[in-house]
Amino acid sequence: MLFLDIQDHDFDLKFEAILSRGDETGREVEQVVLDIISDVRRRGDAAVLELTRRFDRLDAGSLAELEVTAEEVETAFSQVDPQDIAALKLAVERVGRFHEKQKQRTWLSTEELDVMLGQKVTPLARVGIYVPGGKASYPSSVIMNAVPARVAGVGEIIMVAPTPGGEINPHVVVAAKLSGVDRIFRIGGAQAVAALAYGTATIPKVDKVTGPGNIYVATAKKLVFGQVGIDMIAGPSEILVISDGSGTPAHIAADLLSQAEHDELASSILITTDRSFGERVAAEVERQLGQLSRETIARTSWEKYGAVIVASSLEEVIEFSNRIAPEHLELAVSDPFAILPQITNAGAIFMGHWTPEAAGDYLAGPNHTLPTGGTARFFSPLSTDDFVKKSSIVYFSEDGLKRMGNDIVRIAGLEGLEAHGKSVSIRLENK
Amino acid sequence: MLFLDIQDHDFDLKFEAILSRGDETGREVEQVVLDIISDVRRRGDAAVLELTRRFDRLDAGSLAELEVTAEEVETAFSQVDPQDIAALKLAVERVGRFHEKQKQRTWLSTEELDVMLGQKVTPLARVGIYVPGGKASYPSSVIMNAVPARVAGVGEIIMVAPTPGGEINPHVVVAAKLSGVDRIFRIGGAQAVAALAYGTATIPKVDKVTGPGNIYVATAKKLVFGQVGIDMIAGPSEILVISDGSGTPAHIAADLLSQAEHDELASSILITTDRSFGERVAAEVERQLGQLSRETIARTSWEKYGAVIVASSLEEVIEFSNRIAPEHLELAVSDPFAILPQITNAGAIFMGHWTPEAAGDYLAGPNHTLPTGGTARFFSPLSTDDFVKKSSIVYFSEDGLKRMGNDIVRIAGLEGLEAHGKSVSIRLENK
Repeated sequence: MLFLDIQDHDFDLKFEAILSRGDETGREVEQVVLDIISDVRRRGDAAVLELTRRFDRLDAGSLAELEVTAEEVETAFSQVDPQDIAALKLAVERVGRFHEKQKQRTWLSTEELDVMLGQKVTPLARVGIYVPGGKASYPSSVIMNAVPARVAGVGEIIMVAPTPGGEINPHVVVAAKLSGVDRIFRIGGAQAVAALAYGTATIPKVDKVTGPGNIYVATAKKLVFGQVGIDMIAGPSEILVISDGSGTPAHIAADLLSQAEHDELASSILITTDRSFGERVAAEVERQLGQLSRETIARTSWEKYGAVIVASSLEEVIEFSNRIAPEHLELAVSDPFAILPQITNAGAIFMGHWTPEAAGDYLAGPNHTLPTGGTARFFSPLSTDDFVKKSSIVYFSEDGLKRMGNDIVRIAGLEGLEAHGKSVSIRLENK
Repeated sequence: MLFLDIQDHDFDLKFEAILSRGDETGREVEQVVLDIISDVRRRGDAAVLELTRRFDRLDAGSLAELEVTAEEVETAFSQVDPQDIAALKLAVERVGRFHEKQKQRTWLSTEELDVMLGQKVTPLARVGIYVPGGKASYPSSVIMNAVPARVAGVGEIIMVAPTPGGEINPHVVVAAKLSGVDRIFRIGGAQAVAALAYGTATIPKVDKVTGPGNIYVATAKKLVFGQVGIDMIAGPSEILVISDGSGTPAHIAADLLSQAEHDELASSILITTDRSFGERVAAEVERQLGQLSRETIARTSWEKYGAVIVASSLEEVIEFSNRIAPEHLELAVSDPFAILPQITNAGAIFMGHWTPEAAGDYLAGPNHTLPTGGTARFFSPLSTDDFVKKSSIVYFSEDGLKRMGNDIVRIAGLEGLEAHGKSVSIRLENK
């Protein structure tokens, strides 16, 4: 863990190690994934079956056998504690309500008498949601991807999840069903992404693939981008906590550790105007680390990519925060709304002392799929908008074309595109 | 040109050639561009200067000398016909008005007493707009990229345009100024994209790069994606005209040619329920081709990628249109609004007999940067939304955390993320 003063002469240099973590591109991975994609395009179902056998040790006579059946869904429901089902339902309901508010409508402007302009909003016809297998198989990921798609009005939601050895996480199946997923296939890796992007005899071709995954999945998404839409490519997760010294050190320490336990590349940073508060938080982190079941992961993350930074003013703190554009930003200050307008770059902003990041991870309502690694400068959280597309609507009446025809012809002329002008003038000539 | 019946047994096979045009990926181009990007990252200004000298035959002592000065802007205005300036102003004004309507606001929901949720909309701080040089240097491209950025509230708009031999198109300079571009640099190619993405001593680092360009520019944009945001990667342009036989063949022919004159890879397709109408349009295309200044380009495009398709019903026509998801779609039918709801995939929809695509290209208002090659299935036109990003806002009061704390802890438990749960329980324990 770094304990830094923001005005140290070598601050930027030291901090760079945290910012550039997980920055390898992996040309070999790309070649492996390219081969898998072309194999799936060429051989379809057979390729996916074979790769699933190889990577997930899962043998099946056909891809159809890998679809989760209605009975298996029922079994999953019977395996899950009713109170867990209730908690997942609450999450689905709240995430749904938030994403409803993001819905945009088709509009048509009628302010001109001879021209109407508008924008048609249409849900995607079919999307694929990737859910990682094994330990990182989280029901909350299913909810955060499937619910916005359902709210947007997507026609069919296909989920894929690798099930090494065949076992599927019942919480994930329950979450999928509660969120409106239509079909679930037990496939994963680059082969699942390729199957969704290009379609096979059994796996329907989709318009967009979203959801987290390992480096092979992320690379496959990048490579099929353009063939289908994708959500952002997420890097390692991070939290920045801004403190004016007004909170409780133990709470802030717990928040930092909730990020650190994710994985060893996660980064948890506190920046504060109060040095002694910073020291107390650092001590609390050490104390709490020993109590965690995921201590090894959290400790590695904290030691390598954790930091406590002391700044001399809140202005300096905010400037720093906007510069690194954190995925998760906690404003652990006495009056968080007073500084909200100054926050220009952040994935999600957690306001005040009673809003730990974990609240947003599960059921507050906003999406937990957020831009990482400084990309909050230009990327946004996953939203309902990611599951629709827009079409412009242009209507000219004869009067409208007459009114603007000359200007259209003139600009076409400037650009040397005579036929563009002619498509207008030919309509007006014999009038 | 293909004259096809949609029910021909080999229709799909024949049509495939049109759909897959311009589908090469170009691994060599990628290597060249990777080298340029790493050179610009390493040597900054010096690399950009050297590459500009090599590719644009433009020599300068420093990159600063390649910035267009206020005097040069004045000169450009004096070189352009006042009526052309008026036409460009009309376009800027109308495009601005349309894009204003796309603006989303920051919102905060107060429907719960103990939890507030919202979404903050923040303009990008700085964007770069690429404008191709030479023949394809279009003032309308400048308007369609810069105006949405300005309307969105972007802090600074940097335009780059290669000027082979040093000459800059005065219409482009005028359009830039009218659209709100802040600074213009006479650089282009992959080196300009790299300079914008990473910044050099002279070229400011931006958050997003938009605008059309050749294969080197498109590849560079793809490779810097993630470091900065980009707009879509545009493929060759296309138009689909849907006709019920109610229009004027000469008008439809002119519309098809306005697309064909763009470049040899452009594709112009008519689909109609009226075979004899289709034949008359095809004859008109032949007649009008001979009158065009860009006849060679238009003829090549029409011969290679033009088509007239006869279908037996409007349902069949619409099904086809949605399947190919055209960039530009003209509904040249007597009652276009009656079929609008059935159009699910299209970049821009031109309604009725008085709305040639060219109207939308310049000054109707909607953006002319549209998804090509079937990507309207999941991509949208360039919009104001492309120049902002969103941050989620989550506020829990003590009561809110108490109300939902147990469910958060429960879901964290399901996921094996104990520290997530602890960040909640530690706040509630001693209460």
